[in-house]
Amino acid sequence: MQPRLTLLTLGVADLTRAVRFYEALGWTRSTYATEGVAFFQVGGLVLSLYPRAALAGDAGIAPQGHGFRGFALAYNTASRAETDAVLTRAVEAGATLVKPAEDAFWGGYSGYFSDPDGALWEVAWNPDLLPLADGSVRLPA
Amino acid sequence: MQPRLTLLTLGVADLTRAVRFYEALGWTRSTYATEGVAFFQVGGLVLSLYPRAALAGDAGIAPQGHGFRGFALAYNTASRAETDAVLTRAVEAGATLVKPAEDAFWGGYSGYFSDPDGALWEVAWNPDLLPLADGSVRLPA
Repeated sequence: MQPRLTLLTLGVADLTRAVRFYEALGWTRSTYATEGVAFFQVGGLVLSLYPRAALAGDAGIAPQGHGFRGFALAYNTASRAETDAVLTRAVEAGATLVKPAEDAFWGGYSGYFSDPDGALWEVAWNPDLLPLADGSVRLPA
Repeated sequence: MQPRLTLLTLGVADLTRAVRFYEALGWTRSTYATEGVAFFQVGGLVLSLYPRAALAGDAGIAPQGHGFRGFALAYNTASRAETDAVLTRAVEAGATLVKPAEDAFWGGYSGYFSDPDGALWEVAWNPDLLPLADGSVRLPA
C-alpha cells in the first residue's frame, strides 16, 4: 500500500467564505467540480473545501463536534522572513493569528494561524525541511 | 504565496500505537527526528504523528475537543478493486471500517476508515483523479 495522501477535505461552515479566504492567499480554485465543493491543486495533492455537515454525512457519522480538532496543516517556508510574511498575508486574507512566529525548541521558527473555519495552519521555517520549487518537501535521509 | 501544504500533523493519544498502525499499512517511519514525534514521507508531503496535547500546546490552544473533527484525508485509488483492497488492508492494520465502499453520486466508488485516533480517511476511486506513479494527483484542467 503506497504511502499516498492525495486529497485533504476541510469541512467548512460557509463554502463561499472558505473559498474567498484561500483565493485571497493567491490560490486558484479549480474549475473541476464546482457544484457545492471547491478544489485547489496544492503541490501534488488536492485541498478540498466541503460543507462540514455534508462531509460527515458522506462518511455516515454524526456532524457534531467542538474544541480542538486534533490536526494541524503546515506551510514550510524557506526563511524566517517568509514565515513572518506568510502569517501577515494570511491574517490580511481573514485568518486569525493563533501564535506569532517565534524560535522553536527544534531549531526552527514557526507560528500558527487558523482559517475562517478554525483549521490550524503552522507556518514553519525548518532548515532541515525547506520547500522545493514545486512546493513539496523531502525528509532528510 | 505559493499553494503549499507540506506537512500534516495528526494529534494522537498514543504515539506508539499510531506509529504501529501506519507501519502496518506498509509505510516507513523516517529516521529523522524520532524523539516524541514520527514522520512519514507520503508523496511530496510529510505526515507527522504527534501527541495531541503537545500539538495543542505548541499552538497555545486548549487541547479539549470531541466529536467530528471536521476533516478527512483521502487515498485515491486506481480502481474499484484497489479501493476494496485498501479498506481491507487498513482494517487488518487496526483501522475501524466507517463505511464500506459503495458507488458515489459523483461517479466514483468510495468508502471510509478511521485510524486508531479517529482520523477519517476516505478511500476513493475517482476516474477523473487517478493517482500518478509518485502517489500525487492532478485535477483535470
